[in-house]
Amino acid sequence: MADSDLTKQRSALAALLRKVVGGQHVLSSAEELRPYECDGLSAYCVVPLLVVLPADAAEVQDILRICHAQQVPVVARGAGTGLSGGALPLENGVLLSLARLNQIIAVDANNSCARVQPGVRNLAISEAARPHGLYYAPDPSSQIACSIGGNVAENAGGVHCLKYGLTVNNLLALELITIEGERVRLGGGGLDGPGYDLLALATGSEGMLGILVEVMVKLLPIPQRAQVAMAAFDAVETAGQAVADIIATGILPAGLEMMDGLSIRAAEDFVHAGYPTSAAAILLCEVDGGNEEVSEDIAQVRERLLESGATEVRTASDDAERSRFWAGRKAAFPAVGRISPDYYCMDGTIPRKHLPRVLGEIARYSEQSGLRIANVFHAGDGNLHPLILYDANNPGELELAETVGGRILELCVEVGGSITGEHGVGLEKINQMCAQFPPEELEMFHAIKAVFDRHGLLNPGKAIPTLNRCAEFGAMHIHAGDLRFPHLERF
Amino acid sequence: MADSDLTKQRSALAALLRKVVGGQHVLSSAEELRPYECDGLSAYCVVPLLVVLPADAAEVQDILRICHAQQVPVVARGAGTGLSGGALPLENGVLLSLARLNQIIAVDANNSCARVQPGVRNLAISEAARPHGLYYAPDPSSQIACSIGGNVAENAGGVHCLKYGLTVNNLLALELITIEGERVRLGGGGLDGPGYDLLALATGSEGMLGILVEVMVKLLPIPQRAQVAMAAFDAVETAGQAVADIIATGILPAGLEMMDGLSIRAAEDFVHAGYPTSAAAILLCEVDGGNEEVSEDIAQVRERLLESGATEVRTASDDAERSRFWAGRKAAFPAVGRISPDYYCMDGTIPRKHLPRVLGEIARYSEQSGLRIANVFHAGDGNLHPLILYDANNPGELELAETVGGRILELCVEVGGSITGEHGVGLEKINQMCAQFPPEELEMFHAIKAVFDRHGLLNPGKAIPTLNRCAEFGAMHIHAGDLRFPHLERF
Repeated sequence: MADSDLTKQRSALAALLRKVVGGQHVLSSAEELRPYECDGLSAYCVVPLLVVLPADAAEVQDILRICHAQQVPVVARGAGTGLSGGALPLENGVLLSLARLNQIIAVDANNSCARVQPGVRNLAISEAARPHGLYYAPDPSSQIACSIGGNVAENAGGVHCLKYGLTVNNLLALELITIEGERVRLGGGGLDGPGYDLLALATGSEGMLGILVEVMVKLLPIPQRAQVAMAAFDAVETAGQAVADIIATGILPAGLEMMDGLSIRAAEDFVHAGYPTSAAAILLCEVDGGNEEVSEDIAQVRERLLESGATEVRTASDDAERSRFWAGRKAAFPAVGRISPDYYCMDGTIPRKHLPRVLGEIARYSEQSGLRIANVFHAGDGNLHPLILYDANNPGELELAETVGGRILELCVEVGGSITGEHGVGLEKINQMCAQFPPEELEMFHAIKAVFDRHGLLNPGKAIPTLNRCAEFGAMHIHAGDLRFPHLERF
Repeated sequence: MADSDLTKQRSALAALLRKVVGGQHVLSSAEELRPYECDGLSAYCVVPLLVVLPADAAEVQDILRICHAQQVPVVARGAGTGLSGGALPLENGVLLSLARLNQIIAVDANNSCARVQPGVRNLAISEAARPHGLYYAPDPSSQIACSIGGNVAENAGGVHCLKYGLTVNNLLALELITIEGERVRLGGGGLDGPGYDLLALATGSEGMLGILVEVMVKLLPIPQRAQVAMAAFDAVETAGQAVADIIATGILPAGLEMMDGLSIRAAEDFVHAGYPTSAAAILLCEVDGGNEEVSEDIAQVRERLLESGATEVRTASDDAERSRFWAGRKAAFPAVGRISPDYYCMDGTIPRKHLPRVLGEIARYSEQSGLRIANVFHAGDGNLHPLILYDANNPGELELAETVGGRILELCVEVGGSITGEHGVGLEKINQMCAQFPPEELEMFHAIKAVFDRHGLLNPGKAIPTLNRCAEFGAMHIHAGDLRFPHLERF
């Protein structure tokens, strides 16, 4: 669109939206719009047509009715911490920030749940629940900053989702506004709801089916105690095998994380977590539960790690040391940011048993491309987070990093995994969706989208590629006559 | 349809289907069809046009292609133990039995999962996993007989779903055949799958979106130990309050079940479980986990039950007594069947805090109608199973039981609950769907159905009422301008 057309459209639409939210809650000048041009996937930036910040659900309804009438696309944004570009604006679209819907409506200890607005920070829910001995389990690394609405949109995970599940496993109900301005509530707030499971359908739908205005989350009792063991290994493959060995004991760790040598050293330099900097890999294995149970389990974990070839196993002697062990893991991404001008964080999932093979392949890609790759990830879930280090100022290096990243995701699909674990598809992985799904299933996704948003106004161009896009990308999923999906040929 | 037309249609279709599955696997005579006329909701019976028993997924594909070409409705059936009439045949429809798809394809201990065909019995999965120290958690009362395919179709629960979730929380992937004969796999077999969550959408969809041919389930480590406490109360309301008190301790029981006086006495007469027959209610509270944890937890449960007004608390002294305590609960339905010619088993969910009030109202309905009502249910989940006792030989008594049952479900909706906990909607509760959902959401359901099955050939007339049917039923959901759903006004 020509700049002058955009300017005209901007001021006409701004006038309409200001009547809904008041003048100061529609941002339209270049300097006001700039902070919204990227989310956590900072390699892509687009200045939106307008930013609008409604105060409540009724204002969201009015905004969407206007955008629907004007056929203007709408991209929702929570805290903007997403890593796959799900909240990347469109130059001809409204960016709808949910930052002002930030109230914790109720904590209901008797029914072990809380009702919150979408702009509430993940950690704020646990803080509000703590006086009742409860907490909200999913804990993405960004939990201090990220919003529950964004967590729902991306079906976020975290260190503890091995035991406690992803966002979808910790929700009871959602309230959202459709693009036509209808307010609907999904999920019965209890067990099995009658009708199709629209709650699960909407979770992880990346803002493409409706705009969240309320979330009812499950709360869990805070475990009596947690304890963590840190094990060092002299080969990444040995650590990968130890993950399978731990799971085979029958203990379900609350978290089971792996870091490779590059990330260990980056994290240690940054936060002094007490990691063995000469190790090729470490595992952090946390168990939680009752006092005695934790003592029993951590002893068994320790023993098994040594049997599996750990060169050293340390258990945290107190809560301070436990926090320090985790601080290194939680700071791993920014730590890697300190040793490279830029990095590209991938997110793929593989069956646990393929960990040694896939880690070996990633090392090979690193060698071939000349780009360093750090591995920090949820090993227990088989959820990889390779960080590809590059320098955007070197011509072609971003593109090379993207190529390597795409190849890693395709490898995940090849071994029976998937192209996302917890970060969503967004814009970043939309081409890899063509490798993940056959055209028939992509068509099914589009048909479901049309049930909620006939004109495709909500977050267009994200998450689900058009068949045309797949044909252009040239990586259309290849399938045999019976449409068996290779990503499920696991055994 | 006139009988002669049906006969003609029957023999023409049977000839086509026999080419697919062989002669002996198409049933068409009156005496062959009779055993399939009802499922577990025995108040309704319809003789199907034909029964067909395919051997594998390829045969299911061919059958569905034929039915689609001929525009013949198809009802899928697992073990036929469903309690809401989901597998009730249509007189002009094919009943597709999945009984012959009964293979456990693989148990993968390393990835804690199993791939099974839909006709495999629920309990058979745990039996196959036991050598690996694993089991499949959801345990409906019918687990000896019911099939995993039926469990998925109805999103079945069980005694342990308070801690371990419903079927949907224990699945990794599904493979199903669409009415057009396409084979699709839903779910990534791992964590968060990219794309919309079609796995959850299909779970609990009551055979209306596709026919299951394969299920990948999660397996969990068998807990070291389980222990159960039985508490007697002299008032149902006191027992209801004790449920809330237990949950407030922060212990998450593996099961927390209530039985009222009528069911206690019926069960005791039947299986001699050792229940106190003079009690107005008992609670069975099971905890599981590590040895020490279980000892700690059961002591705390015992103490809290006494503080909450239990007149007596007994913990099972050994596994034999524990099994006996549970035997009474598990046999409660047939036990009630021994004291009444017929009974009608309801299934509704309410927020736990409303237990005392709702149990009081149910007692009042019983008094008003003159029908005895036994209450046996998953108290921890707020999932009620009132059993309405009646005699079908007394004219009008079935209708009276249905009226009382409908009223109970509407009460569940009024207090913020839902019309099903784990049995599904099927035919039984289709009218109450009109009370549960506003027309806008029912329309959304129909639109989603159309994505998978444009002509409405899969299990028509079940689970999702047409708007016309709701208008006729006269209980259309009443809503204010903003479409807030009363079933979620919980706090």
